[in-house]
Amino acid sequence: MVQNTARRTALVDAAVEVLARDGARGLTFRAVDVEAGVPKGTASNYFANRADLLDQVGAHIHRRMTLDPGQYDLDRPPSPDLLTEVMRALFHHISDDRTGWLALLELRLEAIRRPELQEALTETLRANLTANIEGRRESGFPGDDTSTMLLYYAMTGVILEHLTVPDVLARFDVDDLIAAFVHRSVAES
Amino acid sequence: MVQNTARRTALVDAAVEVLARDGARGLTFRAVDVEAGVPKGTASNYFANRADLLDQVGAHIHRRMTLDPGQYDLDRPPSPDLLTEVMRALFHHISDDRTGWLALLELRLEAIRRPELQEALTETLRANLTANIEGRRESGFPGDDTSTMLLYYAMTGVILEHLTVPDVLARFDVDDLIAAFVHRSVAES
Repeated sequence: MVQNTARRTALVDAAVEVLARDGARGLTFRAVDVEAGVPKGTASNYFANRADLLDQVGAHIHRRMTLDPGQYDLDRPPSPDLLTEVMRALFHHISDDRTGWLALLELRLEAIRRPELQEALTETLRANLTANIEGRRESGFPGDDTSTMLLYYAMTGVILEHLTVPDVLARFDVDDLIAAFVHRSVAES
Repeated sequence: MVQNTARRTALVDAAVEVLARDGARGLTFRAVDVEAGVPKGTASNYFANRADLLDQVGAHIHRRMTLDPGQYDLDRPPSPDLLTEVMRALFHHISDDRTGWLALLELRLEAIRRPELQEALTETLRANLTANIEGRRESGFPGDDTSTMLLYYAMTGVILEHLTVPDVLARFDVDDLIAAFVHRSVAES
């Protein structure tokens, strides 16, 4: 089985598009081949089965959702203002890759129905939460674990709202909202 | 067209089941008739078209997600502890009606593809957010609008996680987490 990494990535990206557009039910090897513009049968050459494809899509989206260190400047001392900048960069990064986040939402729904996907997705999302909690502890950013979790889930909620029913937040400036969330989440309680 | 309210509600509840189980693509009048155990053609007698059905489902889920005043005691003076109780009651109410919240998630995804549903769902969710903001202002609960929005979206994020990949939060006590979120969200920043 001849494979190459660039083609594999192109196939997984095509799967993300199909997932966001047509939901998990639309995600077949055939649909991925069509979306990627490759000959019929290509996807089945790269993935053992549909579960394998879904797992790789989950891990790939997670990478796509992660900030590239170039997107913010961490050379400055950790402070609420710097954390605000990082959170804003993350929000805009995810908003710009709407397809990726919506595909992740479709994966969450599919995971309810498929135990094997549930396990892999849980692993990915648990690792993400843990990385946030430990990242704050090690970085010297203000706050505590409550700050991290409060901010993590508030960002999740705002992103869900913004990507599915954007006008609900139209009367707010999301950048201001994020700044207020960061400052409050690190406050003494 | 003879209609009755109990049957209408039963049809909308059946549509919620179909939506949560099969996604928006599975939601047809025929599927609703089968789910509700009524003769073929019944649903088409109650709803002008599929968009009408989806709008009614959205409004109905919103009612199902709302706490019945009997589920908590608001006779005591407003305090962070009472707010914690209300938020915990809301979390458990929604967890117990997992189907309703998952159907709402399917509606959010469908709304991305259907402008007419987008408008109705935006209206419903905007009204919900506004009711939370104004409710806190009027009730004398501690905090400010930032408290409400931070808590509102953090609860949304936690519910999304808990209902789709529950084991991510398995090592946390969600009731403790909610108490910490409430106290932090009303802290002075």
